[in-house]
Amino acid sequence: MSTPDAIAADEAEASNKFSFMAAVSKTPKKIQFADDMQEFSKFPTKTGRRSLSRSISQSSTDSYSSVASYTDSSDDEMSPRDKQQTTTKGSSDFCVKNIKQAEFGRREIEIAEQEMTALISLRKRAQGEKPLAGAKIVGCTHITAQTGVLIETLCALGAQCRWSACNIYSTQNEVAAALAETGVAVFAWKGESEDDFWWCIDRSVNGDSWQPNMILDDGGDLTHWVYKKYPNVYKKIRGIVEESVTGVHRLYQLSKAGKLCVPAMNVNDSVTKQKFDNLYCCRESILDGLKRSTDVMFGGKQVVVCGYGEVGKGCCAALKALGAVVHVTEIDPICALQACMEGFRVVKLNEVIRQVDVVITCTGNKNVVMREHLDRMKNGCIVCNMGHSNTEIDVASLRTPELTWERIRSQVDHVIWPDGKRVVLLAEGRLLNLSCSTIPTFVLSITATTEMNMLPACICLHLMPI
Amino acid sequence: MSTPDAIAADEAEASNKFSFMAAVSKTPKKIQFADDMQEFSKFPTKTGRRSLSRSISQSSTDSYSSVASYTDSSDDEMSPRDKQQTTTKGSSDFCVKNIKQAEFGRREIEIAEQEMTALISLRKRAQGEKPLAGAKIVGCTHITAQTGVLIETLCALGAQCRWSACNIYSTQNEVAAALAETGVAVFAWKGESEDDFWWCIDRSVNGDSWQPNMILDDGGDLTHWVYKKYPNVYKKIRGIVEESVTGVHRLYQLSKAGKLCVPAMNVNDSVTKQKFDNLYCCRESILDGLKRSTDVMFGGKQVVVCGYGEVGKGCCAALKALGAVVHVTEIDPICALQACMEGFRVVKLNEVIRQVDVVITCTGNKNVVMREHLDRMKNGCIVCNMGHSNTEIDVASLRTPELTWERIRSQVDHVIWPDGKRVVLLAEGRLLNLSCSTIPTFVLSITATTEMNMLPACICLHLMPI
Amino acid sequence: MSTPDAIAADEAEASNKFSFMAAVSKTPKKIQFADDMQEFSKFPTKTGRRSLSRSISQSSTDSYSSVASYTDSSDDEMSPRDKQQTTTKGSSDFCVKNIKQAEFGRREIEIAEQEMTALISLRKRAQGEKPLAGAKIVGCTHITAQTGVLIETLCALGAQCRWSACNIYSTQNEVAAALAETGVAVFAWKGESEDDFWWCIDRSVNGDSWQPNMILDDGGDLTHWVYKKYPNVYKKIRGIVEESVTGVHRLYQLSKAGKLCVPAMNVNDSVTKQKFDNLYCCRESILDGLKRSTDVMFGGKQVVVCGYGEVGKGCCAALKALGAVVHVTEIDPICALQACMEGFRVVKLNEVIRQVDVVITCTGNKNVVMREHLDRMKNGCIVCNMGHSNTEIDVASLRTPELTWERIRSQVDHVIWPDGKRVVLLAEGRLLNLSCSTIPTFVLSITATTEMNMLPACICLHLMPI
Amino acid sequence: MSTPDAIAADEAEASNKFSFMAAVSKTPKKIQFADDMQEFSKFPTKTGRRSLSRSISQSSTDSYSSVASYTDSSDDEMSPRDKQQTTTKGSSDFCVKNIKQAEFGRREIEIAEQEMTALISLRKRAQGEKPLAGAKIVGCTHITAQTGVLIETLCALGAQCRWSACNIYSTQNEVAAALAETGVAVFAWKGESEDDFWWCIDRSVNGDSWQPNMILDDGGDLTHWVYKKYPNVYKKIRGIVEESVTGVHRLYQLSKAGKLCVPAMNVNDSVTKQKFDNLYCCRESILDGLKRSTDVMFGGKQVVVCGYGEVGKGCCAALKALGAVVHVTEIDPICALQACMEGFRVVKLNEVIRQVDVVITCTGNKNVVMREHLDRMKNGCIVCNMGHSNTEIDVASLRTPELTWERIRSQVDHVIWPDGKRVVLLAEGRLLNLSCSTIPTFVLSITATTEMNMLPACICLHLMPI
Repeated sequence: MSTPDAIAADEAEASNKFSFMAAVSKTPKKIQFADDMQEFSKFPTKTGRRSLSRSISQSSTDSYSSVASYTDSSDDEMSPRDKQQTTTKGSSDFCVKNIKQAEFGRREIEIAEQEMTALISLRKRAQGEKPLAGAKIVGCTHITAQTGVLIETLCALGAQCRWSACNIYSTQNEVAAALAETGVAVFAWKGESEDDFWWCIDRSVNGDSWQPNMILDDGGDLTHWVYKKYPNVYKKIRGIVEESVTGVHRLYQLSKAGKLCVPAMNVNDSVTKQKFDNLYCCRESILDGLKRSTDVMFGGKQVVVCGYGEVGKGCCAALKALGAVVHVTEIDPICALQACMEGFRVVKLNEVIRQVDVVITCTGNKNVVMREHLDRMKNGCIVCNMGHSNTEIDVASLRTPELTWERIRSQVDHVIWPDGKRVVLLAEGRLLNLSCSTIPTFVLSITATTEMNMLPACICLHLMPI
Repeated sequence: MSTPDAIAADEAEASNKFSFMAAVSKTPKKIQFADDMQEFSKFPTKTGRRSLSRSISQSSTDSYSSVASYTDSSDDEMSPRDKQQTTTKGSSDFCVKNIKQAEFGRREIEIAEQEMTALISLRKRAQGEKPLAGAKIVGCTHITAQTGVLIETLCALGAQCRWSACNIYSTQNEVAAALAETGVAVFAWKGESEDDFWWCIDRSVNGDSWQPNMILDDGGDLTHWVYKKYPNVYKKIRGIVEESVTGVHRLYQLSKAGKLCVPAMNVNDSVTKQKFDNLYCCRESILDGLKRSTDVMFGGKQVVVCGYGEVGKGCCAALKALGAVVHVTEIDPICALQACMEGFRVVKLNEVIRQVDVVITCTGNKNVVMREHLDRMKNGCIVCNMGHSNTEIDVASLRTPELTWERIRSQVDHVIWPDGKRVVLLAEGRLLNLSCSTIPTFVLSITATTEMNMLPACICLHLMPI
Repeated sequence: MSTPDAIAADEAEASNKFSFMAAVSKTPKKIQFADDMQEFSKFPTKTGRRSLSRSISQSSTDSYSSVASYTDSSDDEMSPRDKQQTTTKGSSDFCVKNIKQAEFGRREIEIAEQEMTALISLRKRAQGEKPLAGAKIVGCTHITAQTGVLIETLCALGAQCRWSACNIYSTQNEVAAALAETGVAVFAWKGESEDDFWWCIDRSVNGDSWQPNMILDDGGDLTHWVYKKYPNVYKKIRGIVEESVTGVHRLYQLSKAGKLCVPAMNVNDSVTKQKFDNLYCCRESILDGLKRSTDVMFGGKQVVVCGYGEVGKGCCAALKALGAVVHVTEIDPICALQACMEGFRVVKLNEVIRQVDVVITCTGNKNVVMREHLDRMKNGCIVCNMGHSNTEIDVASLRTPELTWERIRSQVDHVIWPDGKRVVLLAEGRLLNLSCSTIPTFVLSITATTEMNMLPACICLHLMPI
Repeated sequence: MSTPDAIAADEAEASNKFSFMAAVSKTPKKIQFADDMQEFSKFPTKTGRRSLSRSISQSSTDSYSSVASYTDSSDDEMSPRDKQQTTTKGSSDFCVKNIKQAEFGRREIEIAEQEMTALISLRKRAQGEKPLAGAKIVGCTHITAQTGVLIETLCALGAQCRWSACNIYSTQNEVAAALAETGVAVFAWKGESEDDFWWCIDRSVNGDSWQPNMILDDGGDLTHWVYKKYPNVYKKIRGIVEESVTGVHRLYQLSKAGKLCVPAMNVNDSVTKQKFDNLYCCRESILDGLKRSTDVMFGGKQVVVCGYGEVGKGCCAALKALGAVVHVTEIDPICALQACMEGFRVVKLNEVIRQVDVVITCTGNKNVVMREHLDRMKNGCIVCNMGHSNTEIDVASLRTPELTWERIRSQVDHVIWPDGKRVVLLAEGRLLNLSCSTIPTFVLSITATTEMNMLPACICLHLMPI
């Protein structure tokens, strides 16, 4: 019997053996070079309309809710940039919050490895060959236990890596410490300033006796930095792998401008990432997020899900399975038909807003839930967002004098109307699954494995050894 | 791995080895003898309120819809009682429509054997022992391929059998012929008159050099006949196995009157029969019955199910799974809570009657769907009954001059209102799963196996060899 | 609340108002004209690999199993071509089996109308406008109650229609009679010869004072006939709407050859047709087909479904929901991952072939179930095909002397091994849902509505009034 | 439309209006008085075999995992018994950790009220009448936000209450403070000693100018204390409501000994408690517990659930719905048949132990998962217990020198074999849903409402005003 991991690993192995063409045609889309621009007008229609969970631009304030952050809040407040730290082996080519937390981080990475068997099996199969020998990868991603496993897999396959964080809040300091301790040049901590952010990126690009030939980016900031500040390095890059929708968008702009002279692989639109990030991941994280923040029982609850794209499909399937009565709003007729055929009542939000216990947005649009809807919700109604950024719920409209906000728990506010009615707002309208749940490691494993697949592809596209 | 059949067979085997007490305590309920009548006031609470699918009293007009009846409609119309027929082996101790149809009936029995593996495995295990040697069983049940397998299993285990039909319409003539051909004294045909009915029962009881010591009854008519006409036979009966709710009710009455001097086993209330007849069987037959009669697509349809007992639970689960939007009406608060927790909206019928596409009754009560509801249904609404007899839908109220009835197909009537609105009435309000679908053989197999279990129990209760 | 029908009708209405471009971009794909051939190499990848249920080429022997065919088997055997028949209004411009069956056919059409509310609502909305006035449509499709509703809707919207059958077996004679009676020039009967088939097509094209300007085809035979025999008519055709994959394929060939000078709309690859024909339709028809042919109980059965495309997804979802244990075989890694994530064990057929109760093929490939598999199945295993044509199961390999075939029922054969093992083969390996179930009218309604959408599009593409 | 809450409230209201007999006959079982002992041999067969989630005997070390405990870990370590504390209104008739935490506790109670609408609606309906006026209730339960809502509802309906904790670890100190602040005489804190435990109970019974006439108990310790220490009080008790299986068992023993002279209501075996605590609650808490402790993705995982009672049914349904492949072990043939019919493979644990990703026990038996099973699990396998106490997994067998235990997170241990294999053991084999998730407030609401129902019943049984 084949397991999901085994299947994913098989696919990955195929890529590693440089039969990458099949993998590419099946999953990721190669972004066009500057000289065939006529294709670009096709750029994203359906898949593009949803911003992906983990594709957070640097300016976003969303951050991972780490279940287990051992960061001591009484940590001294000295900036990591001002500290003198060395690993037990004497290296100081890194910058993290506290290198002494490495042991804690190592455990988190070990937990993650349990679920990331595709990467682990890649290590086992490829280790002898070092298929990535010669690859000098500069990376800029969230730094979590899961990316830790990815980075260490790249190293195990022969690559040299230097890394920074793509988000100023999302770094798990212990994991960064663990990576540094094993010799990866990592520059990241939780709570960087804007200046820190770019300083870290620069340090990752600009190491001693090091010139990167590959970029693994999430958001496009690293790519932009290399393009602007190190044009000579940029020209010699063999390939860019970009994970986020934002970063892909920036690459397309670069391409339109005729300045994308490097093969770039779009991870975001690969089938594996789309299905896992959206359908399968949200099917689980909607339950997890609601439960952790509110302890609500799903059985018998009336729920309206706004939007029946992949995210909405996942949310609806999970809630229906656990006994909720689910209504759907949807403007796309095909998606609306699908909702009907799966047994969901397709309604206008106004029709059900007075009766529902939970409102979930996942449309990708703005102002889906407006003040007039919030005014009509019943006491105790839970409102949350699984869609794009923090604009689906018009939270600003709740910042008026007659409403009282009460912070009940982290990520949970009661907004109280003059008559005593309470609406339970989660994560202030930001992404529920980033704020109040964790991304299953397995989802990250699939994406990481997809990224791994693309690196040899990048290499091959230039038909030369690195 | 254990299959349902294997589990059922294991249980059956235990019984055959006379460790019947465990089986009895787990599943069937022994009806009390005349001398401990004080228990009877407890008789049936919840489980009793639903008449079971196959528990058709003789006066009922419901009959099986046999998928494959090879009865030649051009058959001569001479009464079987007037025919001289003999099997190929020369026996004439039977009375069926046409002994020449035996070969067709044999095939139907063979198909049924494929699904009745519990009985077949009983044959394999017990054949050497003939555990039923000495049993002389007179039976009165529907005569179908499935009961054919039961009867032949009884014979294979050593019993002698004589059989009649418990319903004047339900006999599969070919199967009766096949049974006769193999030597069973069977007296039954499709379309018996009332006089024929009792003549057949009498012939089954009253054979040459034969005195029955066991009764296997469905409806109580045979038991009543023996009790009234053959008191000396009745006294020597070792055990009665009764399958239907009606028959069980008559036995309780006999018991109350102090006249049930025979151990009687209640198959109807056994867990296996209740679950399989109701929950599991209806989960499938609601789909089958609707599909065969109307070809309706379930996805996206709005359905109201009246009653959330075992039958309602089965109907709701199946329709929800296939994408219908299901509403439930229920007066019992516990059942209503269960419906809520499974994600069904609990409503009053009036709230949804204008919007639903399908109305299904399974309450066991009378006049659940009344003329006022029928008047308010939308054009094309399908109305059918999965519950008790034919009283849940007030069909009589539709027999008024202003409504036109149009017979569209067998079991399908369009009732047409003066404004052209059509309501699609199935089986004239009789049981949908008897009229428009087939009972899965596997369900019958489970019940038959349960009955088999009880025969040795009957014997042992008198603690003497037959 | 919106119903599926209402949504489909809304979409259809949009098209009728000539805002067809949106509809086209969302759903159907326009086949390219002869002068932009470079696009053709893209022709169908994933969706193309499955032949659609109703896309039967004329040479196929598959035919609809009509639940209610009132055809009197004792009908005289005179060819309809030799009969003199007239409608009650005196018209004789048609050729059907028996015009006197019109009343029966009318009832079947009325039943179908109950489920085809999208078309009915189109009639209501558009009737005043006659948006199809001037359209002269020659059609060649299955002639069933459902296509009857389509044809009558076209007429109601102002089109003139002449029609023939695309399959020599699938015509419902009563429906053809009913259409003829209302004035449609229909040429079709069940059991046409090859010669009859082309004669009927020719008669539909070549009427008195009639020159068609549109073609609605299923299979491409009509289009081919017009192209070959009536080149002058062909040149003036304003648009072709083609429903089947076979017909679409022939149009692409014509286009490659530079001879498709007419706008042609591909219904087959529209989202609505794909989802409804495959996922939603098969989700229901797998249950229906198995139940009607075998009465098998689904609960507890072990099933292997070969192929996890849209058809496989539908089969698996339905069987899982009804309590079967479902295994999946799949070679496409993305589909295999999806199967895993939905809780199906992804296996090799050999791993489970000994233990399963039901084998269902829906891969679109040849020889998925081979003699070696059939040899290893257990007694009573059911084997059927939901995929492409009749090649997925190697039925030919069962035509060997040591195996006995026993026809148990229509569409059900027991193949018996020397040791007595029986394999239950359905429809001799042809499409189960065409042979042993009915296509839900609602599915046909969606497709018919999609076709309706495209006709104005055809008109507009030439930017001129007809 | 009726919601679960509304239904429960309706039922509760009925009770409040002293039409309690219906409620009693439907749901709770009255334990027999001493003079009809012959009934006791019937005591619990099936339902009794599972210890309920919240029925923790005082000696248990299981405790609630409070999602939001604001207890300041730097709290002074002085025993509450030595502190001088007063409420803002000057009362000092209570003993809690820190009365200043009352405000935090109030918020937790307010959150809980959102989900406990049945109790809230009871308050609204009954407040004018004070139906519990005259009731002096001494209670001993877990002291959490949810029981806080119950206690405050009792007070709102006119009762006087004094309360202690039934578990030395489970008290939410802030909630206890909030209750004390509003005037309830509460004696409880987290981390009581054995001596503290009995001191608190005694203080709750023995107040100034107070003699309780009702007992609401969870575990039977309070009842035992009153029976032993205050026989005169005991004789005048009007009724006992007991929630836990342990407490009920002790009451039966008392009854057998002829010493239960007080009407006692068994909440534990009421349908509402059984279904909600087991089926519905576990359906959600298995997901919650696994997710919070391990972040495991359910889709595609192979799971074996040991035991298919109500708890097992809930676990299986949830995991199947989220895409896991679920196997079941079960020794009861009826339950095993049910598992089969719901599509779960019924296996022996040995058959699948090597391949599964998660093992869940819910049998109520001892040593279901033994060292030999643990030895054969694959790397990363998660093992947890949803059943009775902490004996289902033989955790003791893992305390051997060759195995290394690594505490990864709170409630998560990696047990590491010499070859590096890790088994992930949750909550050291104690109840997962108490240790790693929260009990949905709604479940507690249903149980609390059931308890509320029984208090008037207790009163009425003596047919006198209090």
